[in-house]
Amino acid sequence: MTAGAGRLSLNQATTRHWALAEVIRGCAEAGIGGIGLWRDAVEQAGAATTARLVRAAGLAVTSLCRGGFFTAADAAGRAAALADNRRAIEQAAAVGAPVLALVCVGLPPGQRDLPVARQQVTDGIAALVPHAESHGVRLAIEPLHPMFCADRSVVSTVAQAAALAAPFPPGQVGIMVDAYHVWWDPAVAESIVAAGPRIAGYQVSDWVSPLAGDVLMARGHVGDGCIDFTRLRGALGAAGYQGWTEVEIFNERVWATPGPQTLRTVVERYHRYLAAPGPG
Amino acid sequence: MTAGAGRLSLNQATTRHWALAEVIRGCAEAGIGGIGLWRDAVEQAGAATTARLVRAAGLAVTSLCRGGFFTAADAAGRAAALADNRRAIEQAAAVGAPVLALVCVGLPPGQRDLPVARQQVTDGIAALVPHAESHGVRLAIEPLHPMFCADRSVVSTVAQAAALAAPFPPGQVGIMVDAYHVWWDPAVAESIVAAGPRIAGYQVSDWVSPLAGDVLMARGHVGDGCIDFTRLRGALGAAGYQGWTEVEIFNERVWATPGPQTLRTVVERYHRYLAAPGPG
Repeated sequence: MTAGAGRLSLNQATTRHWALAEVIRGCAEAGIGGIGLWRDAVEQAGAATTARLVRAAGLAVTSLCRGGFFTAADAAGRAAALADNRRAIEQAAAVGAPVLALVCVGLPPGQRDLPVARQQVTDGIAALVPHAESHGVRLAIEPLHPMFCADRSVVSTVAQAAALAAPFPPGQVGIMVDAYHVWWDPAVAESIVAAGPRIAGYQVSDWVSPLAGDVLMARGHVGDGCIDFTRLRGALGAAGYQGWTEVEIFNERVWATPGPQTLRTVVERYHRYLAAPGPG
Repeated sequence: MTAGAGRLSLNQATTRHWALAEVIRGCAEAGIGGIGLWRDAVEQAGAATTARLVRAAGLAVTSLCRGGFFTAADAAGRAAALADNRRAIEQAAAVGAPVLALVCVGLPPGQRDLPVARQQVTDGIAALVPHAESHGVRLAIEPLHPMFCADRSVVSTVAQAAALAAPFPPGQVGIMVDAYHVWWDPAVAESIVAAGPRIAGYQVSDWVSPLAGDVLMARGHVGDGCIDFTRLRGALGAAGYQGWTEVEIFNERVWATPGPQTLRTVVERYHRYLAAPGPG
């Protein structure tokens, strides 16, 4: 593995039907050095057990998915969202995840006012920063593809995430760049470079067209679609990003594939499309 | 109808199963003053017949859909695309359409280089401008939703369309703003205002979530989704846009509805959500 390429991490959503212990063993056996965790799996196993299993396998936790979901129709809903985000921060700290990915949620039901929803995201992040700071967890705003703007994220671009993060130090509020969500953006390369030390993580899967029926499940293995990962890697390099490359694929067919086979594909595609060229 | 609101036009794709003569009669009977035409319908009826029917019904043609599709894997493909665009310009002139909407096409098969594809769009537009000018037709670059970036349009935002149009006078190369494609953009209002006299048309349908299986067919009647048309109308007003509001809905259920009923809904929603407030 070469420095600057982002070492390879597996987000556990890629092998969704594997239990936590299986995915940890699978990563270790496949030579994958990092793992991105999901809260439901951590809660099922318990944070302490999770941390112990990961450490025993010699893996690094690269992120926890996910907090966010800040917008709500009323104050009680927003307060509940903040309480849940505080628990997510505590879980991230407990499992040793340096980064908590934030999915900033779409419009509340029946609402059409995007500026209001975006302001609620701004307020939600500001309310979480002290708790995150005291737990040593970095918040990472994750822009989602504009096709999820209505129901999942009113934050759609890297530049928009950078503007939301701007009031806070980069070490406290960063940006999770997911290639699948941002590849189409004509400004993505400049936005990544401009974000510089804000880049807190890099997730990858490929855009396979035509889109599958369920757009949440349409992602492909890196190399199966049309995303120019070389260009994105160049921008991340210019931004000074030296962190992990986390493979996160939501795809029923990938999930139906035996885990070890999926991990072989992930590793092979990493070396072919994602790892930096060089003497490494 | 009030000035500044954009008077109501029906894009014939909304009543896809109606023949040209039926949709023209339907618009006239429903009090809809404008019609947006599609090339296949014009070719089937003949441009001269189309122009005669529209004129006899007292309708204005508001746009012709569509040219574009500039990117191709080789020079022969690009030359064929330009020849087809020249025919589209001639058809627009023949039916009295002031505007030809351009869908700028996605990545060529097997290609991943968005900047190259976008350069081909730039070159394609430049090559068409003289022909369009000599026929009195305005080209209107239509940004499409980023979910169509791979296979339909590498132009995704109003700002990007404005940058593509910038080398040419606004009367020669403008922008078609389609609410369904651009509503999510955090910069959409400022981009529309900044585009000012570049705005060449305004199309509407609503974003209904969750997205239907076929994302091409997921559009709803205005008011059935989450788009804030009041905010968009405000931006268009600030841009000085006084043109038509063209309702263009791709939706199998709308198509299965009897045409007169669809037109009643279109008119009712226009008055409720789209027409400018005021004494009109």
